[in-house]
Amino acid sequence: MKRKIEAFDYAKDILEAVGKGVLMTTCADGKVDTMTIGWGTMGIQWGKPIFIAYVRESRFTKELVDKNGEFTVNVPYGQYDKNILGFCGTKSGRNVDKIKELGLTLEAGETVSVPAIKELPLTLECKVIYKQEQNKDAIAPFAMERYYGDGDFHTAYYGQITAAYIVE
Amino acid sequence: MKRKIEAFDYAKDILEAVGKGVLMTTCADGKVDTMTIGWGTMGIQWGKPIFIAYVRESRFTKELVDKNGEFTVNVPYGQYDKNILGFCGTKSGRNVDKIKELGLTLEAGETVSVPAIKELPLTLECKVIYKQEQNKDAIAPFAMERYYGDGDFHTAYYGQITAAYIVE
Repeated sequence: MKRKIEAFDYAKDILEAVGKGVLMTTCADGKVDTMTIGWGTMGIQWGKPIFIAYVRESRFTKELVDKNGEFTVNVPYGQYDKNILGFCGTKSGRNVDKIKELGLTLEAGETVSVPAIKELPLTLECKVIYKQEQNKDAIAPFAMERYYGDGDFHTAYYGQITAAYIVE
Repeated sequence: MKRKIEAFDYAKDILEAVGKGVLMTTCADGKVDTMTIGWGTMGIQWGKPIFIAYVRESRFTKELVDKNGEFTVNVPYGQYDKNILGFCGTKSGRNVDKIKELGLTLEAGETVSVPAIKELPLTLECKVIYKQEQNKDAIAPFAMERYYGDGDFHTAYYGQITAAYIVE
């Protein structure tokens, strides 16, 4: 069952969770993949509630979200197995079926073709309404040094939040 | 007096307020200006808490924030005069000293050279760590039609939140 929520009512929970790690789930060509993200922002642009996710060029997630333009954000709420975030932050969906390996429970999306994940039940369904590669020439020196030694920059995906709920 | 807060603890208040209008205050060359904004997101990138503000090319605010790279976000908290947001959303700081006209009470910033505003007391102090013009070729048709008939596009200012408090 899904308990509908107002996304902004849970903004504190979501942003605090982002700092520790949440999942970004994508699917295309019948493949579902999920990746741990530790960055993201939420708010409003063009009059729409949005979640902005940042995805590196090299990621399998990028291939999938570029193909179908939808994603879900899966936020821990209550108890959960922290191993999920560790595993999904170090393995690539190109080599491993993370959903299967971890035995995660998928729940069909309400407004997107991407599923929610019962084990990380606070869910934002998002449709990409804008994306932009970040400009490597404008990245601050501290960030360049710490995050981009490999030249693997991020694209910002602006996902309109089309549904928000907790899987119960 | 300033009561320090954790910015994310107030994420719900801040994001709900953004939808109705908050102020973005800037200063450079001894001039303080403030502008109503109805868009913005908050969260984390590069490990830093950030508030992203979107400013049109034509705005006086853009001149000021490009000069000194700092801004404050001023959020209503408790009772306030709604006329402030109307006035600051329709007048330009090029022609009008909005602070003086409205009789707003400035409070010196803690970590930035831009002041807080006592009448909209929930304050985020922000230092710009990244900015990027939005790509007009990637704007969704609905947004293009509704917001950009005049070709006056937005730049995203990523402000690291360096202090957060309520002026009391």
